[in-house]
Amino acid sequence: MNLVDGVRKGDPLSVSRGISAAENGTAEGRTLLDAIAPLVGRATRVGFTGPPGVGKSTTIDALVQVIRASGDRVGVIAVDPTSPFTGGALLGDRIRMGKSTEDAGVFMRSMATRGTTGGLSRATQDAADILDASGVARVLIETVGVGQSEVEIARAADLTIVILSPESGDGIQAMKSGILEIADLVLINKADRIGADKLEQDLRGAFDLRPSRRQADIPILHSVAFQGKGIPELLNAIDLILAGRRNNGDFDQRRQSNMVKRLRNLAEYMIERDLWNGAGGKLESVAKDVLNHSKTSYQAAELLVHEALKTR
Amino acid sequence: MNLVDGVRKGDPLSVSRGISAAENGTAEGRTLLDAIAPLVGRATRVGFTGPPGVGKSTTIDALVQVIRASGDRVGVIAVDPTSPFTGGALLGDRIRMGKSTEDAGVFMRSMATRGTTGGLSRATQDAADILDASGVARVLIETVGVGQSEVEIARAADLTIVILSPESGDGIQAMKSGILEIADLVLINKADRIGADKLEQDLRGAFDLRPSRRQADIPILHSVAFQGKGIPELLNAIDLILAGRRNNGDFDQRRQSNMVKRLRNLAEYMIERDLWNGAGGKLESVAKDVLNHSKTSYQAAELLVHEALKTR
Repeated sequence: MNLVDGVRKGDPLSVSRGISAAENGTAEGRTLLDAIAPLVGRATRVGFTGPPGVGKSTTIDALVQVIRASGDRVGVIAVDPTSPFTGGALLGDRIRMGKSTEDAGVFMRSMATRGTTGGLSRATQDAADILDASGVARVLIETVGVGQSEVEIARAADLTIVILSPESGDGIQAMKSGILEIADLVLINKADRIGADKLEQDLRGAFDLRPSRRQADIPILHSVAFQGKGIPELLNAIDLILAGRRNNGDFDQRRQSNMVKRLRNLAEYMIERDLWNGAGGKLESVAKDVLNHSKTSYQAAELLVHEALKTR
Repeated sequence: MNLVDGVRKGDPLSVSRGISAAENGTAEGRTLLDAIAPLVGRATRVGFTGPPGVGKSTTIDALVQVIRASGDRVGVIAVDPTSPFTGGALLGDRIRMGKSTEDAGVFMRSMATRGTTGGLSRATQDAADILDASGVARVLIETVGVGQSEVEIARAADLTIVILSPESGDGIQAMKSGILEIADLVLINKADRIGADKLEQDLRGAFDLRPSRRQADIPILHSVAFQGKGIPELLNAIDLILAGRRNNGDFDQRRQSNMVKRLRNLAEYMIERDLWNGAGGKLESVAKDVLNHSKTSYQAAELLVHEALKTR
């Protein structure tokens, strides 16, 4: 079975190999992405973000169970922050999504930070395309941290859910971190703990301070994900929001604005790749030129750009 | 007094205006940077990073006092994380560096995250060049957070200091976050609090686990910055490390490798600027093409790159 056919038929090994090929930017990956492009766009994509420790993975695991109970296939992409220095993944607990992993209707994949921010975003969206083409009904994208690049990745979905917990700090703090501004829905997980109602009040108060972004309408749900509590309600709320947006045109508009960002990022990725193919060999010598004052930094950078574009 | 002369003479208003011009990428900024390039390289640059709340600003304020007591002029650049969404600065307490601000021998400047990571890094290094050319003996660069881009900025110095405190978590945690791997010196601030010795032990243990990067030799110092305790020792340790590196060639080697990274970043910045000048108008229409399957995402991005380069 060739790779394209394998992905189309939902063969897990083909999907896995295809995502790796796309991630590594190989010719096979590019061929696959172009071949499956007509199949892309059917699955809904939901991004999840929130501070560490609020139970994002547990929530997604529980949500996967509820989705599976409806008969739909589902793909999960976990975007892991990785030390920029060691190349090793920070968290060893990705494996805890135990219930889902033996189910053939669930495809799970971790993407690690490699190279640039733009590279991780590109790889995540390519992976979502491949999962989409493989026939899953939903792609869930979890970012482990709340760094700017991870938040951007969670936002590049049809819907973005911010998960908080009573221990994750008050609403003002979450507002300050900026993540609430991308929330289409806020889930207060571990809602059986002290402080859940206070957190909801704080969030409402914070939302009311910013009436500009129709935040008064953002649903705030409660869950106790490790017991599955509140998770069917979460799925219902997701579907309700998406159905409303399909009706009023917001759904297509968001896909359009996400695609603009994606193409911008992808074009930058391509041009940088060419830049360093063409000019990489000159870097050391022009750096010396700047340090010994025979060129200014901007003159040196211009020379690199010129070298890079000569080769196109 | 023109801008170049003003910067050369250390006039604070000229330095301030010059940094703004460089930050905004104006023609005046570019002219200034090219004009002062021969004067750049004399000041030593020290980067500071560490988790929020460990007392980075207080430490730098105390260090500035000690440097000023020696008669040297000093520049401080505080790199602020900004919400990517609101454009507003996260922290309002930059102003607390009170003692130093009325001293004409100290120049302080905040740089906020605007646009891309690469843009902030570029602006910070341009600002450091301008301070350098204005005659300060040292440029201290503080990053408020420990995001990857901020850590990279702290690393782009002659020496990088990681500040921790007993409350900031154990050494293993700091090791996991990756920031210890860029430390040339670790400062345990708030060392009068419980847990300072334990933190040092943990750090030593963590360093010993990674013998590859000569981490056994990394000094770990203690301070109580708000009382000025341990700060003269910090300055001595900085100078000792830098003197040793000047002797064995490591100092120049680090400047070379930092310059390579800087030029790479600068060339990417330039080429992206051109990319969106040339192709920005096509973004919306090619995004539509991808969504309606008349182009694949990679074909669309290639078209944008082609458009951009046509105009050069």
